[in-house]
Amino acid sequence: MPFAVTSCDPGCRARTGSLALNHGTVSTPCFMPVGTNATVKAMKNSDLEAIGVNLILGNTYHLYLRPGREVIRGAGGLHSFMGWRHNILTDSGGYQIFSLSSFRKVEDEGVLFRSHLDGSSHRLTPEDVLDIQMVLGSDVMMPLDECTPPGISRDAALGALMRTTSWLQRTSLEWRGRQAAMTGQLFGIMQGNFFKDLRLRSASEIAELDLPGYAIGGLSVGEEFPVFRDLLHYSASLLPDDKPKYLMGIGTPQYILEAVEAGIDLFDCVFPTRTARNARVFSSEGPLSLRNEKYKDDFRPIDETCQCETCRNHSRAYLRHLFKAREIQAAVLATCHNLMWLHNFVQSIRAAISRGDFPRFKAEVLARLGETHDTPRQGGS
Amino acid sequence: MPFAVTSCDPGCRARTGSLALNHGTVSTPCFMPVGTNATVKAMKNSDLEAIGVNLILGNTYHLYLRPGREVIRGAGGLHSFMGWRHNILTDSGGYQIFSLSSFRKVEDEGVLFRSHLDGSSHRLTPEDVLDIQMVLGSDVMMPLDECTPPGISRDAALGALMRTTSWLQRTSLEWRGRQAAMTGQLFGIMQGNFFKDLRLRSASEIAELDLPGYAIGGLSVGEEFPVFRDLLHYSASLLPDDKPKYLMGIGTPQYILEAVEAGIDLFDCVFPTRTARNARVFSSEGPLSLRNEKYKDDFRPIDETCQCETCRNHSRAYLRHLFKAREIQAAVLATCHNLMWLHNFVQSIRAAISRGDFPRFKAEVLARLGETHDTPRQGGS
Repeated sequence: MPFAVTSCDPGCRARTGSLALNHGTVSTPCFMPVGTNATVKAMKNSDLEAIGVNLILGNTYHLYLRPGREVIRGAGGLHSFMGWRHNILTDSGGYQIFSLSSFRKVEDEGVLFRSHLDGSSHRLTPEDVLDIQMVLGSDVMMPLDECTPPGISRDAALGALMRTTSWLQRTSLEWRGRQAAMTGQLFGIMQGNFFKDLRLRSASEIAELDLPGYAIGGLSVGEEFPVFRDLLHYSASLLPDDKPKYLMGIGTPQYILEAVEAGIDLFDCVFPTRTARNARVFSSEGPLSLRNEKYKDDFRPIDETCQCETCRNHSRAYLRHLFKAREIQAAVLATCHNLMWLHNFVQSIRAAISRGDFPRFKAEVLARLGETHDTPRQGGS
Repeated sequence: MPFAVTSCDPGCRARTGSLALNHGTVSTPCFMPVGTNATVKAMKNSDLEAIGVNLILGNTYHLYLRPGREVIRGAGGLHSFMGWRHNILTDSGGYQIFSLSSFRKVEDEGVLFRSHLDGSSHRLTPEDVLDIQMVLGSDVMMPLDECTPPGISRDAALGALMRTTSWLQRTSLEWRGRQAAMTGQLFGIMQGNFFKDLRLRSASEIAELDLPGYAIGGLSVGEEFPVFRDLLHYSASLLPDDKPKYLMGIGTPQYILEAVEAGIDLFDCVFPTRTARNARVFSSEGPLSLRNEKYKDDFRPIDETCQCETCRNHSRAYLRHLFKAREIQAAVLATCHNLMWLHNFVQSIRAAISRGDFPRFKAEVLARLGETHDTPRQGGS
C-alpha cells in the first residue's frame, strides 16, 4: 500500500501518515505549494528543497494551454521541464475551466471551453485530461470533475455529481489500462455541492473504484466558515480511512487546523504564495501587512521564532522598504517566509498528533492567532 | 596600501590586483552588480554569495530618498539594513540627480533638486553626500560631482570640471577629518567631458589629493564606441597607476574588455541585471533573446559551458515559458545566469592577464561574441 497511517490522535480524527510516491515519500498531513505555471511563484526549486518541500501542485489547465502538451512531452515530462526532482500532484483543470474560461459547455462526453489566454476553443474529455497528466508525468493525477458553486439547486448538483462519477469511472478505466512502471496514482474526487445526501452518494460511488486516494472538491468556494466546517467533517468521514484524503484549495492556518482535525492528509492553496506577493505574511502572533507604516523602522524579523532565510537575514523594515520600492526581492523573500512558516506549522501539527495532543495544540494556536478566517480561494494562480 | 597590483599584461595596460576593503579583499578587475534600492534586483544575498560576488554598488540618491538616511542609521548602516556581509561601494548620487530629477539647480555650495519619487525639494552639499555615505557605512564612497552630457561647450565643461574638483577638495577635507576605524575609502572622480585637455587638467587636480582610488566619470553616456574608446584609453592613462581605477557605468563583455585593456580595475552597470529582466542573456556564442519562438522546444541550457544554477537545472524552453507566462522566476533565473556568466567572464580575464595573454584573449572573445556594442547605460536602476 502506498499510504500508511502512522499515528492517530485519540481525541479526534487527526492522523499522521506516509505516502509513497514515485519521487519520494511524503509525510502527512502535508501542505502542497501551488506551482501553476511550472514554477511555484517567486521560488527556486532549491528554495523549496531548503524548506523541505517534496510535493508541489501543478495546474493541468494552465500547462495544457501554455507551454502545451507537446513542449512538455519534448522535455520528457513536467519534472524534467521545470527541473524538479520531487513529487508533483496535478489537478484536473476542472476548477480552472469552470472559474477562468470565458466560455464553457459541459456535455456528457467532456467539456468545451475557451482559453482565458487567447480565446481559442478546446474540447477535453476525461480521457484527454488523464492523457495530459500522463504526459506531464504527474505523481498524483486528478480526474476531470464538474465543480459547482454554492447556491445551486439539488437537481443541478445531482447532475454534476452523476457526471463527475461517470467521468471518474471512465478515467479509472483508462488509467488501469495504461499502468506502467512510473504511472502516477489516480485519486477520485467527491462532489455533491452542499447537499449531505449527495456527498454520501458521491463518496460511496467513488470508493467503489478502489483508487489510491480521494479528494474533496467543491468546498472552500466562498461559503461561510461554519458551513465549510460542517460539510468538511461530514465529507471527510465518508471517505475510506485507509486512503489519503485530500482537501482541495485550503491554506490558512485556521482552515488547515480544521481540515487536519477532520482527518485530512493533503491540502493545497495559492493563499500563502499569493498573499506573500501582496506583503501579507504569517507570524506566530498572527498575520503582518508589511507595507504598514509602523514597520518603517522595525528592525525585528517577521517572526522571531522562524528560521527561514528571510527571518535569519532581514528585518520588517527592510521588507517594507522592498515592497515600497516594488522590488522583485520583496515577493521572493516574503514567499520564502510564508512557505517555510507554513511548512514548519504543519510539522508542528504532525508532532502534536504523534503526541496524541492535537485538540489542545489546535486550541492553543487559535487562541494565539485568532479565529479570524481569511478565506482562502481554491485554484487560480 | 589597500590596493596592490598583482600582475601586468606585457602587451597592454591590463593588470590584476587586490583591493583590501573593510568587508574583505576584492580581486580586480572586478565587475560590481548594481543594488540600487538596497537589493541587487531579483537576487538574494545568498545567490550573490554563491556566485562569488563580494563587492556590490548601492545608489546614494535612491537610498537617501527611500528609505532615507534615518531608517538606515537606525538599522546600523546599509550592510545591516540589507543583510549583506561583504563590500559596498556607493555612488554619489550625482549622476541620478542629473538624469532622474525633474528639476535641478547647481550652485557652488551644492545642488538643489526635486525627487523623482514625490517631487519633494532637496539640497545636498558635497559634505552632505559624504555624510549620507558615512551613515550607509559604505566601503568605498564617491564624492558629489557634476556629470555633463556629450555635446556641451568647452566653457560649460570647464565650469563643471572646476566645480567637481572644488567639491572633491571639500569632500576630501571632510573625509580626512572624520576618519575612524571602519571609515570607507574615498575615491576621486575625473570629469572633463569629451575635451582631452580638460580630462588632463581634472586628472592632475584630483591626483594631488592622494585619495585611495580614482574613477572616470562622464563616459558611456551615449557617445559612439570609438569616441568612448579613445577617451577611455586617454583618461585611464592619466590616473595614478598605484591606485585602483574605476570606470563608471559599463557592463557588456565588449566594453569590459576595452576597459580592462585600458588598465581599468573596477566597473559597474545595470546592463546585466536589467537586460536579464528583459529576457536577454549572455552566452559564449553571443546574447540570446529568450522570448524568441525558436527556443520553444530548445531543451539546451542557455550556455552549455555555464555552471550557474539556471544552466545546471533549466532549459531555454523552460525560461522562454516563464517569460511568456510573466513569472517572477523568469527574472530571477535570468539575472542569476547573467551575473554568474559575467563573473566567470571577468575571472577568465584575470586569468588571461596573469598568463600575460590578454590581447589574444580579447581578440578571441570578440571573434566569438562579435564586436557589436550593446550600449550600456550608466546609472538608473
